[in-house]
Amino acid sequence: MRAAPLVTRFAAVLGLLCTATVHAADPLPSWNDGPSKQSIVRFVEQVATKGSATFVPAAERIATFDNDGTLWGEQPLYVQAFFLFDRIKALAPQHPEWQSQEPFASVLKGDIKGALAGGEHGLVEMAMATHAGMTSEEFDKIVSDWVASAKHPKTDRHFTEMVYQPMLELINYLKDNAFKVYIVSGGGVEFMRPWTERVYGIPPEHVIGSSIVTKFEMRDGKPVLARLPQVDFVDDGPGKPVGIQMRIGRRPLAAFGNSDGDLQMLQWTAAGAGPRFCLYVHHTDAAREWAYDREGSIGRLDKGLDEAKAKGWTVVDMRQDWKVIYPAQAGASQATSKY
Amino acid sequence: MRAAPLVTRFAAVLGLLCTATVHAADPLPSWNDGPSKQSIVRFVEQVATKGSATFVPAAERIATFDNDGTLWGEQPLYVQAFFLFDRIKALAPQHPEWQSQEPFASVLKGDIKGALAGGEHGLVEMAMATHAGMTSEEFDKIVSDWVASAKHPKTDRHFTEMVYQPMLELINYLKDNAFKVYIVSGGGVEFMRPWTERVYGIPPEHVIGSSIVTKFEMRDGKPVLARLPQVDFVDDGPGKPVGIQMRIGRRPLAAFGNSDGDLQMLQWTAAGAGPRFCLYVHHTDAAREWAYDREGSIGRLDKGLDEAKAKGWTVVDMRQDWKVIYPAQAGASQATSKY
Repeated sequence: MRAAPLVTRFAAVLGLLCTATVHAADPLPSWNDGPSKQSIVRFVEQVATKGSATFVPAAERIATFDNDGTLWGEQPLYVQAFFLFDRIKALAPQHPEWQSQEPFASVLKGDIKGALAGGEHGLVEMAMATHAGMTSEEFDKIVSDWVASAKHPKTDRHFTEMVYQPMLELINYLKDNAFKVYIVSGGGVEFMRPWTERVYGIPPEHVIGSSIVTKFEMRDGKPVLARLPQVDFVDDGPGKPVGIQMRIGRRPLAAFGNSDGDLQMLQWTAAGAGPRFCLYVHHTDAAREWAYDREGSIGRLDKGLDEAKAKGWTVVDMRQDWKVIYPAQAGASQATSKY
Repeated sequence: MRAAPLVTRFAAVLGLLCTATVHAADPLPSWNDGPSKQSIVRFVEQVATKGSATFVPAAERIATFDNDGTLWGEQPLYVQAFFLFDRIKALAPQHPEWQSQEPFASVLKGDIKGALAGGEHGLVEMAMATHAGMTSEEFDKIVSDWVASAKHPKTDRHFTEMVYQPMLELINYLKDNAFKVYIVSGGGVEFMRPWTERVYGIPPEHVIGSSIVTKFEMRDGKPVLARLPQVDFVDDGPGKPVGIQMRIGRRPLAAFGNSDGDLQMLQWTAAGAGPRFCLYVHHTDAAREWAYDREGSIGRLDKGLDEAKAKGWTVVDMRQDWKVIYPAQAGASQATSKY
């Protein structure tokens, strides 16, 4: 690199300083300029600018985010399914019967397709066998240990490194504008809470998810919450607005999803009075992530895509709209942009 | 009033200013000095003073309050029971069968004892008949209208004026020390949320309570949440720690109740590591409020009183510890103290 004349460098530095003092930093640096980014900024300014005709008091600024496929990857399987399979392998020595009993036998043979052949019934059976039978505290530790070590089979990254950098920026942008940001996910609530604060900056009390029945018990004079093998609440599809109403008790101003399982949450959000914002993340990036929509068995976006187009909701084209996908790439891109 | 010499007045003003800068105002002015008040202040200073060996980060400062009998009155009946009876009267024209069908017939005759003769089963039946069959939005309006007009049969005060001034101060004191303050009540969550923010400063998303099943439906293309006549979750007794875990996902640092229905919440709180605080409000004031504990059918405090004494929890003696009961009295007392 050739050194520029001193006076030029000085002028450049001055220019940078002036820019910095006049314009706030771009809150969404990983988003390309375009209709998606513009629609987000326009909405936030509408509701958060004092004196605006569409101003909404901070207390009512609720934003809800789906997790799988919206904040982190969900292909080729939900992360919680990888966890479930690993738990079956870990628990197999205590369950000799699993060697010949489906769907467990397929999992132990590494035959994912066979393991999933039983559909939802088989999944629930595996979930109950691996997610129940311990206390909430014990489950928290099991999840924390797994998340710290497990890696995605294709990318060899920790799953918590496969969160979407542009969505992290969006969460922070909303929080900086006094939004209360919640996760509303079909995933297990106690599967997410051990790591959402560290990874997303979303504390446990802002995480809504599916749950199994939990029972208060005294064990040797010490109170515990025992996780029972019984479904309590399914926070998916029509369950999402129900979960929002039961846990938050306010209708969101803004909702973010990526699949038909989020459609009712977006409909419920859109039906509120005043400005509302609905956004779908559309997975269009086979090179950097995955490309799927109407056909997938995981994260299918079919009815939602039609309704988004009909209603004018924001549809993020991942390939076009996002400069980077993962935080590690953002770090690299920032480092590059400095020179 | 005789004017004081200018110099005296000037000195007095200076004195006031100096006091104001040295001592913060008493955050609990309606509490008499004594062991209860001291235990509260000591605990808050333990966990909220930076550098203290028992300091707890703000994010983990969770406090949970029971509602009936802890934040507002519950005698001679839970407020929600008065609401329920008024709803039966309002809905009676649409239900001619209620004239001869118990427990409705007794309610319509004004025979409260007869109405309650069916015990819990009868209460649930009345709750389902009056709390379901509408949308969440419609129910919100029904509750709001009722709360704005209904009055307590003995005091002729609005129920929301029968909240406990010392507990309002305690809520604010905790919030000023960065606690997240939740209600965890056996009462209906959608019965409380329409007014808790105005009355207690506790927003809807910090209210945990019992619930009935709610279902997402499209009606004329508009999404609604329909309230169904089916119990979903009972947030009482052993249900309270379960509700806390499912909704908040963190163990409280401090918990406040007044009955055996709060015992498990206090046990769960006390069993956490580090400093924890448990407080029972003991209704000992027959003259200004009510006096009851081990015998009552509503708000019975029997096992809880024994455990509180055994464990050294704070037991508020309402008659001894509270200067005033209701906010109106605090206003009068403050006005008096100025002269």
